[in-house]
Amino acid sequence: MISKNKLKQIKSLSLKKFRQKEQLFLVEGDKNVLEVLHSPIRVQELYATETFLTAHTGSLSGAKQVNEATQEEIKKASLLKQPQNCLAICEIPPAGELPQKPEGLSLFLDGIQDPGNLGTIIRTCDWFGMEYLFCSPDTADVFNPKVIQASMGSFCRIKTVYTPFDTLAGLFNQTQIPVYGTFLEGKNLYTENFPVSALIVLGNEGRGIRAEIEERIDFKLNIPSFNHNSRRAESLNVAVAAGIICSEFKTHSK
Amino acid sequence: MISKNKLKQIKSLSLKKFRQKEQLFLVEGDKNVLEVLHSPIRVQELYATETFLTAHTGSLSGAKQVNEATQEEIKKASLLKQPQNCLAICEIPPAGELPQKPEGLSLFLDGIQDPGNLGTIIRTCDWFGMEYLFCSPDTADVFNPKVIQASMGSFCRIKTVYTPFDTLAGLFNQTQIPVYGTFLEGKNLYTENFPVSALIVLGNEGRGIRAEIEERIDFKLNIPSFNHNSRRAESLNVAVAAGIICSEFKTHSK
Repeated sequence: MISKNKLKQIKSLSLKKFRQKEQLFLVEGDKNVLEVLHSPIRVQELYATETFLTAHTGSLSGAKQVNEATQEEIKKASLLKQPQNCLAICEIPPAGELPQKPEGLSLFLDGIQDPGNLGTIIRTCDWFGMEYLFCSPDTADVFNPKVIQASMGSFCRIKTVYTPFDTLAGLFNQTQIPVYGTFLEGKNLYTENFPVSALIVLGNEGRGIRAEIEERIDFKLNIPSFNHNSRRAESLNVAVAAGIICSEFKTHSK
Repeated sequence: MISKNKLKQIKSLSLKKFRQKEQLFLVEGDKNVLEVLHSPIRVQELYATETFLTAHTGSLSGAKQVNEATQEEIKKASLLKQPQNCLAICEIPPAGELPQKPEGLSLFLDGIQDPGNLGTIIRTCDWFGMEYLFCSPDTADVFNPKVIQASMGSFCRIKTVYTPFDTLAGLFNQTQIPVYGTFLEGKNLYTENFPVSALIVLGNEGRGIRAEIEERIDFKLNIPSFNHNSRRAESLNVAVAAGIICSEFKTHSK
């Protein structure tokens, strides 16, 4: 069962200040929970229905403490609209460090605010085989339950590192890996060839890439629209843009 | 000002049954509201701050009734986390009809559930210059405030038509426009060439494309992953997948 105090603790993990104070975060959804049980992330407590526990006996050793709970209790504790059969209280792992020598493709998120966008981008990074995702300190928190949810388990695999852009740009300059970003005046994404290793900067949903960061970008790209009407979408959703850019980098690299 | 009764009415528009009963929907966010004021959609009532009204005098004729409201009142009425300076109560336009002769690229959504995904896909359709978006009757409602929000004004331009797939497939068969869908066993998206006119089916977030619909798909495609580890993202978010597929169709058409 889930005690009243536990319920209160679980609910509190929707807020960053409580996550930071307790160094814990919540993982919900059957797929996410199964992924975290098989990952190096420490699962302090698992709450799951009898059916879930019976179906996944082989995964339960990934949790320090396993508790049976009713679907009703899980629904009550859940932060999701459609709660599933389990939830896990996990320890926030130590903050990720910058790689010594970056390799392959990686992204830098400049102040992405929407947790759904961040989670979706993490999932996309995993799909494209990236190791790291770099985020400005004011980007949404990776341990926000909505980010975890949208990442569909990929948060277990992608090393998400919060870092000022300056530090990161220094590292990429040193290793001579070029930095790309998208701008209205950039070159057509669809006609360029790309290196295997690169850093791609994605701007905030509202304001795009900050001026201080723009200055340090080596190559400006533009995703051209295929709508030629005067009234049309001004931009793509940032997670969709990320997907299209990664797709082009991976299929048009020299 | 916003009266108590009006506040209640606005809040009720978060639910489909009230939207259907009143044939009204809510548009929030400055950009969305400005777009709807310039569209053929009828705006019954606009509530906006003095600052917004002064800044956009040229757009106000798009609303039947214009009301000044304080930021506090708009915040109270808003369904958003970060309310902006205005909200509009709009009339649900008559249900869209199928085109006589479809042309160019269009999508069919087979039971997309997440309003954010639907809104993002509408925005993507607009970006790629599509005219129509077809949805199965069990797809999320386009007039859900979260869909409107995520579409960033594109809901004003894309003709969203709810239709059983059978009817649509009949139309596309008749006009000899091929129907595509993504499946694990499909052909590599990145090595195919595509016709200028096509219908692309996108499956539900959890279960993918229904078996009855799969049967009627002419060409099966696969978006290959670039992650070769055994544990990796099993799929992309559906809105990201839509963006990548549309991007490939538009840049690799014969």
